[in-house]
Amino acid sequence: MKKQIIVFALLCLVLNVVAQRPPAISSPDVNADNSITFRYFSKTAREVKLSGEFLKEPIALTKDTSGIWSVTVPPVTPDIYPYNFTVDGVGVADPNNTHIFANERFKRSIVDVKGDKPLVHSLQNVPHGKVSYHYYNSATLKTIRQLLVYTPPNFDASGKTQYPVLYLIHGGSDTEETWTKVGKANLIADNLIAQGKAKPMIIVMPYGNVRPAPMPDFTKDVVNDIVPFVEANYSVQADSKGRAVAGFSVGGGQTLNIGLTNTDKFAYICSYAPYTATDEFKKNFTDWKPDADKINKQLKLFTVSVGTEDFLYESVKQNLAMFNDKKIKVKPLIVSGGHTWMNCKLFLATSLQEIFK
Amino acid sequence: MKKQIIVFALLCLVLNVVAQRPPAISSPDVNADNSITFRYFSKTAREVKLSGEFLKEPIALTKDTSGIWSVTVPPVTPDIYPYNFTVDGVGVADPNNTHIFANERFKRSIVDVKGDKPLVHSLQNVPHGKVSYHYYNSATLKTIRQLLVYTPPNFDASGKTQYPVLYLIHGGSDTEETWTKVGKANLIADNLIAQGKAKPMIIVMPYGNVRPAPMPDFTKDVVNDIVPFVEANYSVQADSKGRAVAGFSVGGGQTLNIGLTNTDKFAYICSYAPYTATDEFKKNFTDWKPDADKINKQLKLFTVSVGTEDFLYESVKQNLAMFNDKKIKVKPLIVSGGHTWMNCKLFLATSLQEIFK
Repeated sequence: MKKQIIVFALLCLVLNVVAQRPPAISSPDVNADNSITFRYFSKTAREVKLSGEFLKEPIALTKDTSGIWSVTVPPVTPDIYPYNFTVDGVGVADPNNTHIFANERFKRSIVDVKGDKPLVHSLQNVPHGKVSYHYYNSATLKTIRQLLVYTPPNFDASGKTQYPVLYLIHGGSDTEETWTKVGKANLIADNLIAQGKAKPMIIVMPYGNVRPAPMPDFTKDVVNDIVPFVEANYSVQADSKGRAVAGFSVGGGQTLNIGLTNTDKFAYICSYAPYTATDEFKKNFTDWKPDADKINKQLKLFTVSVGTEDFLYESVKQNLAMFNDKKIKVKPLIVSGGHTWMNCKLFLATSLQEIFK
Repeated sequence: MKKQIIVFALLCLVLNVVAQRPPAISSPDVNADNSITFRYFSKTAREVKLSGEFLKEPIALTKDTSGIWSVTVPPVTPDIYPYNFTVDGVGVADPNNTHIFANERFKRSIVDVKGDKPLVHSLQNVPHGKVSYHYYNSATLKTIRQLLVYTPPNFDASGKTQYPVLYLIHGGSDTEETWTKVGKANLIADNLIAQGKAKPMIIVMPYGNVRPAPMPDFTKDVVNDIVPFVEANYSVQADSKGRAVAGFSVGGGQTLNIGLTNTDKFAYICSYAPYTATDEFKKNFTDWKPDADKINKQLKLFTVSVGTEDFLYESVKQNLAMFNDKKIKVKPLIVSGGHTWMNCKLFLATSLQEIFK
């Protein structure tokens, strides 16, 4: 017994020294009224601010005598929000929050304000699909890359069922994990399938960044490597009516490039707040002379979604005008809100109820 | 064109303001000679130190006039190492490194020093298995929990093949992702299966923390919820010869509790640097009167692994002496090194070549 106490004390001591642990503080705490308390520890920082997608602008935390900075923000609408601290001008994720925004460039955390009743992305007691991490060889990009595949609840692995497939692309500097870890695509699909509002489908979430390769190489990677990989490994409906492509921001632009240049392969195109100021988009669409009748027949759904506070709103309106001008049938979804993953979840939940029907 | 430039400039500006981005710096840089350069940006920090499992003790970074702190450590043995910065006494992950140590308590980054030739955990051009993220209902813990399932390359989903299953448990405060994201269990299995050194198997990586439930509830969760879930969802060899249990640190202690109290269910027990100063271990083994002959017949392999610099080395030696005293056949694997995930990878690679044979 004494030995065990000594070993345990030693464990605590060593782990604390090795890991350089700050004091155990809790952050974020979502309070009963949906207000949120954030805390950060630093004895030497001069200024700690909180930025969050529930705030119009950053707010300051205040420090107590023990070096714990804190602030409580007023009640927010239940949703999952990204946030970060800015410590003396440097953005950092919340060191006390395990839930990190999957991104290659910035470090943010996410806070889940669950509210009283389940939301479309909430983990509920319904049948769950699974998300599988695969490696595939990209001949286009000459490397081994990772992609995620959601298969629906009660997935029929016998090969008797042929599932439709949504190819779902993240934003620039996001990763192949952002649509599940931040966008909760798998839980949204689980819930909508359980409610009978979405058809059982496979959702493929590739890694869309191709730095330093030029962006059109990702379009080739999807068409020449990813789609064949998925169709070789899963029993799918291998025609355009069984394929949808969707994506957000840079991925929304990639969606337009991939989809509209391959309307024989994808009958559903869902572009969310597309970023289109790219060479690839310019090359494809500046002098575009589409056969609108043909494309309108090929496409079962072409939708472009954006929030009115999105910094790309004006650009997206120009895209929509361009498509209208070319007589391409497009279904706009204009909502409130900005260039956010809260809107991404709404856009995806909308699309999942519209595709493959 | 002009509009696109304006939109692009706006995108950069808004994204930088929204995300509070520090200047784009590269860290870590693994140099050609396997030395590593680490960088951190702060204009106001007084002291920035680097802790890493390639260092005996923390070393200081030095600041240039632009606020970029840096240090280069001498060449290290190729491996994947955890590290973190300590900024004015507070441990932080490297803000410029996407690869984060999956853990609930501390924030560390990992650096992959690949070296000239592939290591047992390197991503190689061999057939790859996949790692699937599942939800399951734990009746024991009265909640929905996540677990990861590795299935081997060319997995036979027809149900004709019955795979053996390794249940592989992370350390305390790690998560169900630590064995893949840090321990590279999937890549180690891919490589050893490709070399014919390991049998194709399923590896189940549950979430082992049960706070605030008492630890024995995890033993119940494995036996009563996880094993039945796996056996209902995968075609497996559902007898003790088809089941192994392994784990590291707190998970190594859980492995002993789960395995040795269920020798009718698990014929392979592989405990890595077990932490055993727990009530559950004390309850199970203080006055343990095992039927050694029976257990030795039931177990095809019982191994306990530890490094001589592990802070639990003395404790593990006492465990080994206890098992010897009780006439339980145990195969020790004593190597150099400490309580590290470098050793975890070695221990797992060793076990994968020994189990199910």
